[in-house]
This record gives sequence, C-alpha cells and structure tokens, in this order.
Amino acid sequence: MRQSKLFGKTRREVSKEEKSINAELLIRAGFIEKHIAGVYNYLPLGLKVFRKVENIIREEMNAIEGQEMLMTALQPKELWEKTGRWSEMADIMYQFEDGHGSEVGLATTHEEVVTTLAKQQIKSYKDLPVYVYQIQDKFRNEKRAKSGLLRGREFSMKDLYSFHADQNDLDQYYQKAHDAYLKIFKRLGLEAFSVEASGGSMSKQYSHEFMVKTVAGEDITILCDKCSWAQNKEIFQLKNGDKCPECGTKLAEAKTVEAGNIFRLGTKYSEALGLQYTAEDGKMKDVLMGSYGIGLGRIMGTIVEANHDRDGIIWTKATSPYQIHLLNLAKDDKSKAEKLYLELQAAGIEVLYDDREISFAKKFKDADLIGVCLQVIVSDKNEKLELIERENKKIKLVEKKDLLSEIKKYYS
Amino acid sequence: MRQSKLFGKTRREVSKEEKSINAELLIRAGFIEKHIAGVYNYLPLGLKVFRKVENIIREEMNAIEGQEMLMTALQPKELWEKTGRWSEMADIMYQFEDGHGSEVGLATTHEEVVTTLAKQQIKSYKDLPVYVYQIQDKFRNEKRAKSGLLRGREFSMKDLYSFHADQNDLDQYYQKAHDAYLKIFKRLGLEAFSVEASGGSMSKQYSHEFMVKTVAGEDITILCDKCSWAQNKEIFQLKNGDKCPECGTKLAEAKTVEAGNIFRLGTKYSEALGLQYTAEDGKMKDVLMGSYGIGLGRIMGTIVEANHDRDGIIWTKATSPYQIHLLNLAKDDKSKAEKLYLELQAAGIEVLYDDREISFAKKFKDADLIGVCLQVIVSDKNEKLELIERENKKIKLVEKKDLLSEIKKYYS
Repeated sequence: MRQSKLFGKTRREVSKEEKSINAELLIRAGFIEKHIAGVYNYLPLGLKVFRKVENIIREEMNAIEGQEMLMTALQPKELWEKTGRWSEMADIMYQFEDGHGSEVGLATTHEEVVTTLAKQQIKSYKDLPVYVYQIQDKFRNEKRAKSGLLRGREFSMKDLYSFHADQNDLDQYYQKAHDAYLKIFKRLGLEAFSVEASGGSMSKQYSHEFMVKTVAGEDITILCDKCSWAQNKEIFQLKNGDKCPECGTKLAEAKTVEAGNIFRLGTKYSEALGLQYTAEDGKMKDVLMGSYGIGLGRIMGTIVEANHDRDGIIWTKATSPYQIHLLNLAKDDKSKAEKLYLELQAAGIEVLYDDREISFAKKFKDADLIGVCLQVIVSDKNEKLELIERENKKIKLVEKKDLLSEIKKYYS
Repeated sequence: MRQSKLFGKTRREVSKEEKSINAELLIRAGFIEKHIAGVYNYLPLGLKVFRKVENIIREEMNAIEGQEMLMTALQPKELWEKTGRWSEMADIMYQFEDGHGSEVGLATTHEEVVTTLAKQQIKSYKDLPVYVYQIQDKFRNEKRAKSGLLRGREFSMKDLYSFHADQNDLDQYYQKAHDAYLKIFKRLGLEAFSVEASGGSMSKQYSHEFMVKTVAGEDITILCDKCSWAQNKEIFQLKNGDKCPECGTKLAEAKTVEAGNIFRLGTKYSEALGLQYTAEDGKMKDVLMGSYGIGLGRIMGTIVEANHDRDGIIWTKATSPYQIHLLNLAKDDKSKAEKLYLELQAAGIEVLYDDREISFAKKFKDADLIGVCLQVIVSDKNEKLELIERENKKIKLVEKKDLLSEIKKYYS
C-alpha cells in the first residue's frame, strides 16, 4: 500500500475527551476514528489488524470443531422475556419500538437466539455434542464508555456456544475451549493468563476470565507468581492468611484487562427456552450449554495498552497491519524504493510504502507511531538497506539479496 | 463436513407466513432461520455461501483500488440532520433515545459517515481520487418485509464510496465500477444487466441498477433484446412509439430484482458536510462523490430465485456451499465413503459428506434440496462412482482415479 494513497492520515493530537491510551494512539496513527462515545469506525489500517485478530480466532475455533454461523442484532422482546433478560438487561440493552407495533432490542449477547435455533437442530443424543460460533457486532449501552476499544457500545465479538448431553461432556469441552483461548492469546502475542471468576447465580463452578496485565485494566486480579493460581478480586475471600490456596506463597495484586471469558451455562437457557433432547434411554433431558466470548476490538485495544512506548504503537508480530514499513529516504531517485516495493509485494510480503514527499523526520515519526514491526529504510547514502525493529529500535544493515530471508526469519 | 454433525437440518415445511421462494427453500434446506420479519440468522451452510459471495465482491473492489474499512451502525442524530436525512429517512431508519440524553439511529447507508471521515483524509488535490468500501450490516425498518433475503430489515451490504476532484474523474471511475459490477455478477454465475435509473434529485445523469430477471422481481425493466438498452420502468417515458431509443427495435418488459446499484452523488454530501479540497490553483473546491452498493443477502436470495427447480436449490458454481455432496449409499460398509471423504478433503476439495444413517431416498431428497452443484454417490452395487450434476441430474459413472480431475474440470 502506498502511504500517499492511504485513507488514514496520522495526526498530532486528538480530542481531549479521549482519555484512553489505546484510543489516543489508534486515532493519532490513523487506525480508527471516534464516531460517538464508545463507537469507533475502523479505517483501512485498523481493519487490517482487526482481520488478523479475526483470522487467528477463527482458525482456533474451527480447530475445536466450532461451526461458524451468523446471528442478527435485532431482537424481539418476547424472546428475551422468556429468560427474564429483557428487564434484567434493560440498563445496557438498546430497546425501542419498531414502528410496526413491536418492541425490539439490539443483542448484547446471543444465548437466547442460539438456544432457540438449537431447538430445530438438537432432537436426540445423536445430535450432541455440537458447537457453533459467530464473529458479529454486539451493542451495549454502557454508561461510561471512556476506555477506547476496551469498552465499546458497538463492538465485534466472537461468541462460541456448546451443547452437551451431560456435565462430564461439558467439562471436557470447557477445558478444550480454555486451552484454545490460551493458544489464541499466545498466537496474538499477548501474555494472557486464566483467572477464576464467578460462575454466576446458576453455577457453583468457577467461570474463567483471560487477563492481560496493563495499568489501564479495569479488573484487579489476585495472583500467585509461583504456581500461577489467579482469581478475580471480586470473588476473592481472605482466608488462610491471604496466601495462595494452591502453594501457600504470598499473593500479589495486578491491574488487568479481561480479554476473554468462558462460562458453563448449565441448563439455565435450555430450561427457560425448552431445549431438550431424547436420551439413549428414551427420556427427555435438558441440554447443557457453555458460552465462550472474546471481543475483537478489545483485543486490539489491549495489545496497544500492553505494547507501546512514547513514540507510538508497537504491534505484535501476528497483528502488525503490514509486515514491512518501507521508508524511502532517497532524495531525488525514487526508483530504488519503488523497485523494492514491487519486489517485496511480488514475494508475498505485506508492505506499507511511505512514498510521500515529506520530510524524513516526519516519515520516521509516523512509522514509529503506526508501529509496523519492521521498518526498511532505502537511502542515497547507503547501498545496503537499514532494517529497524520497531520494538527496540535495533538497526541492522542488510544486503538487498538477504532482505527477504531476514524478514521471514523475523516473522517465523 | 459430516452431515450428521451439521448444525442445519433440512425440514419438510416452513411457516405459511414465508411467502418468498428464496426464504422457503433456504429455510427448508438449513441455510437460514427466520428470527423476526425481515431478519434472518445464517446457519453454517448459509454462511458458507455468504462468504463466497463476500470474497468475490471483495476481490473485485480491491481490483478497482477500493480500500476496505468498517463503519458503525449506531449514528448520532446531529450528523444526519446536517444532510436533512434524519427526518427524510425517519420512516425506514430505526431511531431511538440512547438513555444518556441523545438520540441515535441505525445506519441505513453511510454517506454521512464516510463524508465526515473523508474530511480528515482529504485536504488537497493530491489526496484525490480515493476509494473506500466496507462490507457491513445495515438496518432498514421496511414496512413490508415479505421477500425473504431480497428485502431485509437487517442485511449485509457492500458499499463503496469514491471521491474525486472533478466530474471527468468521477465519470471515469463510475464506468470502472460499472464494469467491476458486471464482472462480479458474471463470477457469481448471475445473468445481470445494467439498467438506466433515476439519478435522484441532485443529478440529471442516470444512475444504474444491476438487474436479474426473475418472477419474484419487485422492479419492472423495459429492455431491448437486440441492443441490450434497458431502463427502469419508473423513469421510462413513452416516446418514439415505444421503440428502443438506441436501435428502434420493439421493447419488452421483464420483472427483475435489483441486485446492485451505482450513483453519482456529485457534491450533495460534500456541500452539506463541508468536504472541500485545495485545488492546484490554490482555490477551495467541493469534492465530488460516487456511491456503489450491493446487498450480499439479496444476492443469495436472487441466486435462489433464479436457480431452483421443484426439488430445491441449484447453486451456481461459484456459490455452491461445498464443491461436492458425497452420499454414502453402501449399506453395511461405510469405509469406502469414509476413505473417499478424507481423500477428497486432503486434495483440497470442499466436501459435505452425508454419513447419516437414514434412508437412501431421504439422502437424495436432501441433496437436491440443498443444491450443491455436484453429487458423488458411493454404493455397494458399483465399483465406479456416480457423479451427478444437480442442475440437469446428468449422471456419469467415474473411476475413482478420475474423480478429482472430473471435479476440477467441472469447476474450472
């Protein structure tokens, strides 16, 4: 992509309303634009990162046999009344008259819908287990929406739902989904750990939240550095002299962002909506369910909160919008950079090419702000190319013939 | 995909409310489920088709230098008041209080948003032309939503917006987009033709609609079979004895579905929202715009309306949810079909494998209803495989060793 053509200019400042580091950097660097509080448009650079996050999540959901589908935002009141959530969620659910005599709402989550759909699909034990997921836009009318992409009013979420004949099967898949989540975060380059959290009113079993340490975190996690036991402070009870219940080590506190969560729903929704199956013995039984969520924008925001310096964003290898930011610093002759741009693209490398006629200082500044992992500098001064790692600003002089293998080595 | 595991069972009947052929067949075949009037959930089979449509559109938008982005559904009243569309569109735009003292709406289209975003990106003639698009969910509070996927209240749309320094540049790109649209429909396997339509109150130039002939069409097109001139009946004026204005041949009428449309917006939105650029001579000028839409669900619905028989859907080659529907008719020994399933998948073929223990008749019936282009039958009776084309039910006996090349030949 030629930066001169890119729909996404960098800028020096953002509105002072924007309190969060992730929104400030992402707006300044041309990834997103604020539309209204908690509602952000994704510019081309932002969508590039979004798609990389999306693809990793999709691959890992497919790997645990999730079948992708797509449910709608518009919701009928009648359905949500059956689970009591029309009134329970009235605070954060957008609810309004549709002008044709019905009340509708925008989905905050999809348990009601997916359970209803499952009634068509699950009749007998032979239809179980089954796992479906979607990557879809949800709406939550948050009172405070001041955390950028960490807490949006309109946001894309991956939500997986699992259906089981018995508790044992649910527990096994829950563990499988738990491990898939850890794999997703690892691939994304995020250091996340799972934390015990409340199972909700319906369950004595814990749910799990996947936490990333950052000062912007809205959660506080109590954790053991030795055995990696961790629990959300909301449910932590001071016993045993405030020591780790697993290994007895002194516990610590950390501010964390919740980047995903998984729940055993049990029969809460199947009971309310009548999702039953015929067991092997011919009896009708309630289906057990689990739900597993990750917010895609929240992941992007978390990566920025956890990976930036005073110059800008530092994307992880898996989420860098481009693999290479090519900066032309040659004064008169653009041909060397132009040729390299075409060659790298032909070799399948994703290149953002700063072909703009602006000062070199501005090019460097923008490249650091945008945060592509590797910068390649073409100049008059040097036959060799400069390869700069954004993270640590380490510079390496590279012969042109070795560039491709250097790039591949870095990203391998 | 093993059909025994598929979240998407076929069924014999749908609710009598469902008047359209596309919704009836897509629901019966397990592609979609109706949620509320005009609002459909996509089951895994439906999403497969949706993604194929999406990918073709995306490729052709990228080919005409469209930069993909993603805008939001939630809209502030203030923005839409600037163009007068908050009140103009009140009938079909969902509008409501957000509970924090503001009125918001759900986007029916994104001219207001994209023009506002462009003000950050377009300052000088050097920033022009530029083209951005998105594939995103829109909401329209349609009074009658009885046409299945042809007219939804919540629906995914590709909308491209172009920005230009002058009319000539807009006209050139308009033609390019026009041709890209024809290419999209051709790749999708849809016989679409472009039709002159009203340019709206702002323009004396025609806009163009891309029409597909089907009896379910809500539009009437006046067309010339000889020179392929065509015009929407809404703007057609009886002159010249009702003969083709291009070649003088007698004109005909046809019922058509509008599968896409393109507009020259001129300066309508840039004037209302203050989108100007500094021209080469230093003067400030209004940016000219074009907008180019295609509804993805509508495309799916149109394909079904135009391609079905009394047994079910007949997907086009490019939109078949799987390349092969593999039916096991061997009574005792599943191993032959199982082996073939794995081999085809390993060869990169998309296979829906009917491994269910049900009657052969039901398997055939379901396969014809679902409408995968090619069926492969494994039986005890025959060492060879039966390859059936869904469209014409032509049967061919194929040696196993030749199957792959037969499949590739069909889809090439």
